[in-house]
Amino acid sequence: MVVASTNAIPFNRAYLTGAESALMETVLNGGLLEGDGPFTARASALLTEMIGAVATLLTTSCTHALELSALVLDLKPGDEVIMPSFTFPSTANAYALRGAVPVFVDCRPDTLNLDERRIEAAITSRTRAIAPVHYAGVGCDMDAIGAIAQRHGLAIVEDNAHGLGGYYRGRPLGSFGALATQSFHSTKNAHCGEGGALVVNRADLVERAEYIREKGTNRTQYYRGVVERYRWVDIGSSYLPSELLAAFLTAQLEHFGQIQARRQEVWAAYHSRLADWAAEAGVIQPTVPDECVHPAHIYYLLLPDLGTRQSFLRHLRDRGIQATFHYQPLHDAPAGLRYGRTGPGGCPVTERIADQLVRLPIYTGLGDDDLDQIIDGITSFRP
Amino acid sequence: MVVASTNAIPFNRAYLTGAESALMETVLNGGLLEGDGPFTARASALLTEMIGAVATLLTTSCTHALELSALVLDLKPGDEVIMPSFTFPSTANAYALRGAVPVFVDCRPDTLNLDERRIEAAITSRTRAIAPVHYAGVGCDMDAIGAIAQRHGLAIVEDNAHGLGGYYRGRPLGSFGALATQSFHSTKNAHCGEGGALVVNRADLVERAEYIREKGTNRTQYYRGVVERYRWVDIGSSYLPSELLAAFLTAQLEHFGQIQARRQEVWAAYHSRLADWAAEAGVIQPTVPDECVHPAHIYYLLLPDLGTRQSFLRHLRDRGIQATFHYQPLHDAPAGLRYGRTGPGGCPVTERIADQLVRLPIYTGLGDDDLDQIIDGITSFRP
Ligand SMILES: Cc1ncc(COP(=O)(O)O)c(/C=N/[C@@H]2[C@H](O)[C@@H](O)[C@@H](OP(=O)(O)OP(=O)(O)OC[C@H]3O[C@@H](n4cc(C)c(=O)[nH]c4=O)C[C@@H]3O)O[C@@H]2C)c1O
Ligand SMILES: Cc1ncc(COP(=O)(O)O)c(/C=N/[C@@H]2[C@H](O)[C@@H](O)[C@@H](OP(=O)(O)OP(=O)(O)OC[C@H]3O[C@@H](n4cc(C)c(=O)[nH]c4=O)C[C@@H]3O)O[C@@H]2C)c1O
Repeated sequence: MVVASTNAIPFNRAYLTGAESALMETVLNGGLLEGDGPFTARASALLTEMIGAVATLLTTSCTHALELSALVLDLKPGDEVIMPSFTFPSTANAYALRGAVPVFVDCRPDTLNLDERRIEAAITSRTRAIAPVHYAGVGCDMDAIGAIAQRHGLAIVEDNAHGLGGYYRGRPLGSFGALATQSFHSTKNAHCGEGGALVVNRADLVERAEYIREKGTNRTQYYRGVVERYRWVDIGSSYLPSELLAAFLTAQLEHFGQIQARRQEVWAAYHSRLADWAAEAGVIQPTVPDECVHPAHIYYLLLPDLGTRQSFLRHLRDRGIQATFHYQPLHDAPAGLRYGRTGPGGCPVTERIADQLVRLPIYTGLGDDDLDQIIDGITSFRP
Repeated sequence: MVVASTNAIPFNRAYLTGAESALMETVLNGGLLEGDGPFTARASALLTEMIGAVATLLTTSCTHALELSALVLDLKPGDEVIMPSFTFPSTANAYALRGAVPVFVDCRPDTLNLDERRIEAAITSRTRAIAPVHYAGVGCDMDAIGAIAQRHGLAIVEDNAHGLGGYYRGRPLGSFGALATQSFHSTKNAHCGEGGALVVNRADLVERAEYIREKGTNRTQYYRGVVERYRWVDIGSSYLPSELLAAFLTAQLEHFGQIQARRQEVWAAYHSRLADWAAEAGVIQPTVPDECVHPAHIYYLLLPDLGTRQSFLRHLRDRGIQATFHYQPLHDAPAGLRYGRTGPGGCPVTERIADQLVRLPIYTGLGDDDLDQIIDGITSFRP
């Protein structure tokens, strides 16, 4: 998160619904502060219902939900996972940490999502999974990706860090993969500072996910009275967030409608009020396919080239507006070259749009005056 | 944490200093809720000072600090790490996750710590590190372990989950290893529900630890203005706890003296008031070597055998006292057999004491009446 200098409009401002403090006080009064208490159950149940999942396990971050997915799928060194190059390093790290190879595929020039037409050429006998990222919460082509996964016997892990509240053909994002991951980092629509969740859509994966999340122990069975003592039964980690964060997240999820209402307004205002300027200036606005409903997580623009993008950012900064670029390609990053492999045809679209992209301020607390100031600032720019 | 039934004295009760809410409100008002804000800096600085470290990096748990240690030391598949079998599964998991082999060595019958006389026989050409656990915060024989590590060129990672505030020959626990790990799980003396820290005692390891904790990116350098954009430069994860938890932990660390005072009283009361009964009943009380100052994290008793231990636990439960056993050996656990190896001579002491051990309630909020009731309950037991 960029910190605002005086009077500047920040790129992001973590939103408080007002209900967080009271729920955190409930935790303090109850005295159970570690993970897996009643608020963890409550937040998980809300997510399970929103997404229509089999189960949802809160985690300490989306990064850790991705790591948990790699463990649940039992990925081995040399296994390959297909993913976009245009994503956050965590998507790749989670699999690289298991010795698996991230295989970077280019994105579509319209949605900036994993290009479904380029996936099959990247599949080898080592491919085990596809990890599509719903960029800005706009759904990937899950019909096509689902068909490819089925044809080749691959698991899908949706990196749904951006997509809570989004839909593809009327079905919630996060419900398509065997597994999906959510982020509740403070930059996300609903947040708890740092947090995440693993969404499980296959009943046969729930128990193993629980073991791994509980330090590889059968502690859950111990507390259900099934075993007399718990033991180290499987490889694992510790992904339980404190009940304090689960309470905070519960407040956010219970007010998700209120959070979303304003974000949608801001997104729509950018989209309509910048249209004429964008057309004139050769700037591209986001594409949202008809089959997608998105949660207004990001509003971005694609400037003609890197030079123009940089002068645009400076132009906005001079007007007190903190806009910013986004992901740097992974396929040609130092760690991408070392741990990953690039699919046939490379990632030319990713390389181009990473240099062109600008994200505008979007958050629930963004006032109308600020919005006007941003739009005036933008439309006064001529490439 | 065991939840108390009505009127029962719980095994543990998470302590609040009273300063937590106000500091968490400061975070809410400041609007920066993700990791690595001012409270993360404040809590880290307090820990660095308490331990006399080069740097301290807050993490989401001690489990994750251990995982971070394995990444910082760049452990490879087949590398071996010597550790006690009598520890929590996280100590072993962290290395097994990297493909390294936990090598289980027995514990000393007096302190229940890694038996320094048995370490050298377990060293092979693949050994890379020793991970001693200061059980109950009573220091391992760091003179002997340090000498062995030096002789064989091994790194030491102290699993100091129990030992904040403990000393060995006047030097703080956590300051002996190249790395050490702390836990702030709600069962620990100072806590934030779920949390931990990596203590770094070697300056050359700090930068790599920072990269790995920041998702394998050079984001820290970006924020220092050293690079124009941050990229994926190394393997990594995300170990930043939310500022909310860092604020909570700050409150606890700033009142550590107050937390410790009562714990020490409780520990001392058990030790003196149970002495006669223990001698008569053939029950063994904890041994604290002269060179060790411990932080009163655990008070345990060793009963003659498993049968007696179980009737002792029942006896106490019938009197509303929630005492409990502790670690189950790792060397012969299902995952221990699969991922680990046992050092020469096996772990007979671990097997025995795991069956004999009982932990008594110990926490800052334990009242004198409860303490009397516990001691009466204990001394009314005859094996
Ligand atoms: C050296 C060392 N290194 C690293 C870490 C990682 O720290 P992080 O948590 O920060 O990552 C630890 C962790 N401490 C943990 C956890 O912190 C915390 O979860 C808690 O565990 P419990 O919630 O279970 O609580 P309990 O009250 O200790 O026991 C409750 C019941 O469980 C039964 N039991 C218990 C054990 C242990 C076992 O093997 N088998 C078993 O059947 C005994 C009781 O009736 O305490 C643990 C010891 C550690 O100690
Ligand atoms: C798909 C997907 N999958 C998984 C996860 C894991 O989620 P968890 O966090 O829950 O584990 C994410 C994560 N989102 C992250 C982080 O959440 C959060 O840290 C934050 O990152 P920043 O704090 O940096 O904030 P920012 O304001 O986005 O950018 C700030 C400045 O940094 C410059 N920048 C930025 C990037 C990205 C980059 O590569 N290089 C780069 O030079 C642009 C700006 O000027 O936002 C990230 C996108 C994700 O997106």
